[in-house]
Amino acid sequence: MASESGKLWGGRFVGAVDPIMEKFNASIAYDQHLWEVDVQGSKAYSRGLEKAGLLTKAEMDQILHGLDKVAEEWAQGTFKLNCNDEDIHTANERRLKELIGETAGKLHTGRSRNDQVVTDLRLWLRQTCSTLSGLLWELIRTMVDRAEAERDVLFPGYTHLQRAQPIRWSHWILSHAVALTRDSERLLEVRKRINVLPLGSGAIAGNPLGVDRELLRAELNFGAITLNSMDATSERDFVAEFLFWASLCMTHLSRMAEDLILYCTKEFSFVQLSDAYSTGSSLMPQKKNPDSLELIRSKAGRVFGREDKEAVFEVSDTMSAVLQVATGVISTLQIHQENMGQALSPDMLATDLAYYLVRKGMPFRQAHEASGKAVFMAETKGVALNQLSLQELQTISPLFSGDVSCVWDYGHSVEQYGALGGTARSSVDWQIRQVRALLQAQQA
Amino acid sequence: MASESGKLWGGRFVGAVDPIMEKFNASIAYDQHLWEVDVQGSKAYSRGLEKAGLLTKAEMDQILHGLDKVAEEWAQGTFKLNCNDEDIHTANERRLKELIGETAGKLHTGRSRNDQVVTDLRLWLRQTCSTLSGLLWELIRTMVDRAEAERDVLFPGYTHLQRAQPIRWSHWILSHAVALTRDSERLLEVRKRINVLPLGSGAIAGNPLGVDRELLRAELNFGAITLNSMDATSERDFVAEFLFWASLCMTHLSRMAEDLILYCTKEFSFVQLSDAYSTGSSLMPQKKNPDSLELIRSKAGRVFGREDKEAVFEVSDTMSAVLQVATGVISTLQIHQENMGQALSPDMLATDLAYYLVRKGMPFRQAHEASGKAVFMAETKGVALNQLSLQELQTISPLFSGDVSCVWDYGHSVEQYGALGGTARSSVDWQIRQVRALLQAQQA
Amino acid sequence: MASESGKLWGGRFVGAVDPIMEKFNASIAYDQHLWEVDVQGSKAYSRGLEKAGLLTKAEMDQILHGLDKVAEEWAQGTFKLNCNDEDIHTANERRLKELIGETAGKLHTGRSRNDQVVTDLRLWLRQTCSTLSGLLWELIRTMVDRAEAERDVLFPGYTHLQRAQPIRWSHWILSHAVALTRDSERLLEVRKRINVLPLGSGAIAGNPLGVDRELLRAELNFGAITLNSMDATSERDFVAEFLFWASLCMTHLSRMAEDLILYCTKEFSFVQLSDAYSTGSSLMPQKKNPDSLELIRSKAGRVFGREDKEAVFEVSDTMSAVLQVATGVISTLQIHQENMGQALSPDMLATDLAYYLVRKGMPFRQAHEASGKAVFMAETKGVALNQLSLQELQTISPLFSGDVSCVWDYGHSVEQYGALGGTARSSVDWQIRQVRALLQAQQA
Amino acid sequence: MASESGKLWGGRFVGAVDPIMEKFNASIAYDQHLWEVDVQGSKAYSRGLEKAGLLTKAEMDQILHGLDKVAEEWAQGTFKLNCNDEDIHTANERRLKELIGETAGKLHTGRSRNDQVVTDLRLWLRQTCSTLSGLLWELIRTMVDRAEAERDVLFPGYTHLQRAQPIRWSHWILSHAVALTRDSERLLEVRKRINVLPLGSGAIAGNPLGVDRELLRAELNFGAITLNSMDATSERDFVAEFLFWASLCMTHLSRMAEDLILYCTKEFSFVQLSDAYSTGSSLMPQKKNPDSLELIRSKAGRVFGREDKEAVFEVSDTMSAVLQVATGVISTLQIHQENMGQALSPDMLATDLAYYLVRKGMPFRQAHEASGKAVFMAETKGVALNQLSLQELQTISPLFSGDVSCVWDYGHSVEQYGALGGTARSSVDWQIRQVRALLQAQQA
Repeated sequence: MASESGKLWGGRFVGAVDPIMEKFNASIAYDQHLWEVDVQGSKAYSRGLEKAGLLTKAEMDQILHGLDKVAEEWAQGTFKLNCNDEDIHTANERRLKELIGETAGKLHTGRSRNDQVVTDLRLWLRQTCSTLSGLLWELIRTMVDRAEAERDVLFPGYTHLQRAQPIRWSHWILSHAVALTRDSERLLEVRKRINVLPLGSGAIAGNPLGVDRELLRAELNFGAITLNSMDATSERDFVAEFLFWASLCMTHLSRMAEDLILYCTKEFSFVQLSDAYSTGSSLMPQKKNPDSLELIRSKAGRVFGREDKEAVFEVSDTMSAVLQVATGVISTLQIHQENMGQALSPDMLATDLAYYLVRKGMPFRQAHEASGKAVFMAETKGVALNQLSLQELQTISPLFSGDVSCVWDYGHSVEQYGALGGTARSSVDWQIRQVRALLQAQQA
Repeated sequence: MASESGKLWGGRFVGAVDPIMEKFNASIAYDQHLWEVDVQGSKAYSRGLEKAGLLTKAEMDQILHGLDKVAEEWAQGTFKLNCNDEDIHTANERRLKELIGETAGKLHTGRSRNDQVVTDLRLWLRQTCSTLSGLLWELIRTMVDRAEAERDVLFPGYTHLQRAQPIRWSHWILSHAVALTRDSERLLEVRKRINVLPLGSGAIAGNPLGVDRELLRAELNFGAITLNSMDATSERDFVAEFLFWASLCMTHLSRMAEDLILYCTKEFSFVQLSDAYSTGSSLMPQKKNPDSLELIRSKAGRVFGREDKEAVFEVSDTMSAVLQVATGVISTLQIHQENMGQALSPDMLATDLAYYLVRKGMPFRQAHEASGKAVFMAETKGVALNQLSLQELQTISPLFSGDVSCVWDYGHSVEQYGALGGTARSSVDWQIRQVRALLQAQQA
Repeated sequence: MASESGKLWGGRFVGAVDPIMEKFNASIAYDQHLWEVDVQGSKAYSRGLEKAGLLTKAEMDQILHGLDKVAEEWAQGTFKLNCNDEDIHTANERRLKELIGETAGKLHTGRSRNDQVVTDLRLWLRQTCSTLSGLLWELIRTMVDRAEAERDVLFPGYTHLQRAQPIRWSHWILSHAVALTRDSERLLEVRKRINVLPLGSGAIAGNPLGVDRELLRAELNFGAITLNSMDATSERDFVAEFLFWASLCMTHLSRMAEDLILYCTKEFSFVQLSDAYSTGSSLMPQKKNPDSLELIRSKAGRVFGREDKEAVFEVSDTMSAVLQVATGVISTLQIHQENMGQALSPDMLATDLAYYLVRKGMPFRQAHEASGKAVFMAETKGVALNQLSLQELQTISPLFSGDVSCVWDYGHSVEQYGALGGTARSSVDWQIRQVRALLQAQQA
Repeated sequence: MASESGKLWGGRFVGAVDPIMEKFNASIAYDQHLWEVDVQGSKAYSRGLEKAGLLTKAEMDQILHGLDKVAEEWAQGTFKLNCNDEDIHTANERRLKELIGETAGKLHTGRSRNDQVVTDLRLWLRQTCSTLSGLLWELIRTMVDRAEAERDVLFPGYTHLQRAQPIRWSHWILSHAVALTRDSERLLEVRKRINVLPLGSGAIAGNPLGVDRELLRAELNFGAITLNSMDATSERDFVAEFLFWASLCMTHLSRMAEDLILYCTKEFSFVQLSDAYSTGSSLMPQKKNPDSLELIRSKAGRVFGREDKEAVFEVSDTMSAVLQVATGVISTLQIHQENMGQALSPDMLATDLAYYLVRKGMPFRQAHEASGKAVFMAETKGVALNQLSLQELQTISPLFSGDVSCVWDYGHSVEQYGALGGTARSSVDWQIRQVRALLQAQQA
């Protein structure tokens, strides 16, 4: 008889359950992550039952004590699952009953499994958000520190992977750090919506036994209470929000990794990865592969489009590892300042050449065309752009004069970009201050 | 020669461009949506150039006047695209030049196309968020009004599509309305992150010509300024956030639609869709299909996983239509209160039967099993659960006595669920007040 | 020193590896599935090395013997992983070296890890496809048997969840079985493209040591040899194809499950799920939930959009469980023939009423409109469509005469649909024969 | 009254339809692509009706003639849509009625809209597959021709973007061409499953009027007939298969584009894109961006995860453009053979150095470690790997002798890879022959 198997809905079934179906339905393999918050939630609920008169003080104490024992067994690794434990909730209640007897059967009064699952998940994710916030914060801080230390290193900025304009190395670092500050802000918002108590919603209609949800909220330190019992037990917006947050954050880390993979190539040779974040090849002895970066990049794919509860645990682990590896990579990366400098070439100043003409009064569209002609002339003659003679330049526009030589200075070029957000030293300093202020504000 | 074709990068190219490639690269087909914000952005930028001394007051006035003309042509539908207009930005500047001559060539000084695209997109999306906020607000308000008016209608609550417990019809409406209030809240957060000025970032290094970004921010009424020029021109987090917002909102509307599709079936017959939101069959004369609901449901698939700029325009149109159709459906829906009542059956009170025993002191797990045995006994005897005699019930537990008859009252059942969020009248009233307060707060 | 840790690329590294990075990079947790095929692949490769003169016969025998031992340990569950085993390939080679000494170091000559990974994956997936083919075949057979046995049961066909036309219950079963035959066909095509030997491709340039790839192909029983070494080691089309196959198959099973979930509701009551495939509620004693069907439906989401190697193992397990549970559900399902019959209603014959007029010579569009008017008239009068009097019908069209009464017979209605693929008895028999023939052909 | 609006289900509705809902439901904006196949399908169906005695020969001729007129109007661009034409099917039938009067109303006898939609879609996609097959074939042919012409150009093969081993440039081209041959093969399989007649399935139950589906099949030149009417009208497996095919093909083109984007950078400088496939920058006069390649790469994202009918039209256009642009890019690409040669460096021969020791009898794992030590020694001394003296090498292994100098020859290195699929000249020639044979076989 089915009730002998100890299933929770014991009384009614008469057929046995297909074992494939049972295994198929079980979630215990991954929801063990929830053991601690499940005990927390049950302790709070037993306090609620006591206040509502559904447990005596003595029964509550017995349950609280039993739950502490359960937690202790988990913490010490001595909790033994048996094959009927289909999820963490049944496992814990089964064990509680073994420890304290029939009183355990009162704990679930007026509470549904859905109630319990969603409460546990919110408690767990709230903690996870805090942990990830800290790791993200650490990564951004590392990046800003590095940006500050290496403010005077210039290298090529790229668009479409083609050399575009000289910029500061710190400007590149900050472009990624700034993206991560948005992730940090978003994570706080997600956490706020996670931090809402669903417990006390029952299966669908609510709780009929006078349980005080405000007491439950306070016990579990939630910021608010869900408004509608049907919505409370079924909605998983907060999971979707967390996964989306992870996707976007991974996109940012992935882009940074992609840039660094390129900068690590023999052809670019701008940076060198620490051995601690590289691996070799089982076949080719000379290889040193930027595997840490490739993993960061590829993990993005693992995060996108996951939707289930299992995903939450896996994505959380991934994010935690990725943030730490990224912090390690950034803090140990060696830069090759000389190679960076050598990669700057006069054609990257073609925009400055156009601005030179603009400053002499030529409309930008004409100046852009004139500068383009200079680039074409230099290519045709097989010389660098700054090797065109003044006379040659003057065939393109009479506005060129001796002072054009001032254009061919990379340091001067970057210093022009002094508007907020630009790559001039003053603007980079401003960015560093802004990001530091954000970090401080978010930590508060 | 390529420069004759009037392409912006005129001076350099000597080969012709593959026409398939040109068509492939063009975005004018969908970015026309941006005409108005493109003019707005250019007007602000010309003011910035004037303040920086790159335009005289007269030149600025000429440009402002020309841009107003361009806008007027778009507004009146007289703007003529030509085949070299690859996007809205080139189209508007080309037309400006036709209207005011060479001065038009000064407008793009220090501004990159990326700068311009992202500014336009943020301006456009900011407006779109406001519009959609209003439509969403209207839908929620309609739902709450209806929930208030029909508070006394009871019907079955389902889990796993099986009848679970009696609930109020308003409780069902509110479960969906509450989900939508989260969407409303999220939309405000998304809007806040959209509302940041990128203009003045140039291609990558920033703006070198002393343009005052604070002036641009004020002109365009943005709430803040982007921190890093490289990040500013390349990041599209706000697009991803908007699309995610739409996905989540569509998920909610889709679930509501799914419930209603079911309630519209002959078998359920709880509600009847207005003819205005139904269609027929080209073959079967008797059919009246809930197409509006099916479209709402299916549009969810169209919103998920879109990532490009085109998606923004399409998703925005979809959301606008879906929100309006949903409002229409909800406000014209007819309910069949009698059918709803007839669908309530005594077995849905099995949980109440267990609570009856709990109140007499039996632990819930035993009470659940005892009630399950009663259900099984009734099934075996082929009678309804409330038709078991007291004697029969007492064979299951001696705690059953005459007052068990009070259990069999659906109205009494729902009134038990008085904890916050439950389906009792007082709790439903509380939900209505809460949602109304949220609406008011968000509108402020 | 790094070489002491026994890493494969031992000689070069001097820094230690970040432990988070190491764990991050390891795949051993899931690629253990490959132990058997990894040994198979290595055995074949050692035969190739012997033929190429890179192993003596004695060395080869030593390696073969050692690999058999490794396999034995896995089969008996005595293989012990150590913490440096980052994947199944290093684990097996490490163990081989412990068992047979330095000769083990010759096994990887000219082979890259990529070579080995992709060979193993193809061997494993080939076997998986065969297993799943068998399970799918079994499911289809069960469905066809059931369709044959219950050919005379009529019930409503639905479109848009609205009752459309009377059909045979078998017609519904066959609609799903036919979809699954396409999956069966596709699986064979996928298997064909999996069954191609990549081994002998090295890291990128190919194999330089005279290994005979035709010998490797024959040893491992592959159908063909990959054409290009770079493509061979990097392409995972076959994984994408397998996952797509699984997605499509799950879509079909999911749709069938969705129909059955509906047919299991109290409101439809067409079928009853065996207790072996149902579960209860921890709160509501009367509940019997179609969890097996809901799991089948929800697993579809788990299969979509997975892309990595881990996905292959998980998706394969999911498909295996789902196919078996689906077979169990279908073979134990109880149908309620009487309820099915009662759900047929005269308005479902409105199309037949139109055809009646078509047979009397009225163009279909007019007949459709006339029949629609009859439906409207019946609704207005509050009677069933077949209760309109002949006189009433004649106000709509003079073509109605006494023989219209023949229209109101559900059995007669379905028998009209005798064209191939229709719901007439003869056509259903033809479908059964066709699907049986396909099953037989595919098994051959 | 609704029937006046001319809607197909005219007779029943009394309310007006919400105009937003109408627009929402309409598909005419994109399904105009189907005008030609819709006429084809209707012509075949009218022949079927005539054979079944539902049309006289004269009526059929009238309809056929009218449909030819409709087609003519579309072909000449004179067909005028009106605002009640919600899809191409209603539009064509509305026009037919205007042209030939009431007889048009007989065309839809026994046919449902679903029947018609799916028939049209299959006819259209069948044609599209043929077109795309031709374009794909052309691209592969171009690649193979180029591979044959440039067989003697060597350049670095990369793994993890790090230089790995010297390979032939043709080997790289062929690695991509071979991937595309699988797409070509898959497209034929998809086409085979598209080429099945659904017409004659009605709405759900089949066709009750004796229409001969074999006649319809032959008229429309389909290869087979669908087995079950419910499945036939609702299944869109063939659409999913087509979209999956496009995704996989785009993945391949995207990877090739990604490689080429890198090879186009200043830092790699291996190839130069024709001006016909490049674009410039509106701000930076010197820029020449590989936009064609970036578009190919980014279009992959547009193809993934689309699921609707609209997607089919868009994806088909995308694939057509992408295949043609890719063919253009490949055929006009200029290679810089000298830069390619200069990018080969002695450390890329470290694997050959290990093989040198293997050939002298050292187990590969030891040889790999020895070669790794040589790489490390060279790095430490700051010399190239081939500049280590024999004495220095002998401190690593006594097996090194004078003949080690033969290792330092890139041409010799690639010629070792003579196993099938390798980069040796003979193997590259074999690949060329194999791909050519495949192209010929598929064209047949």
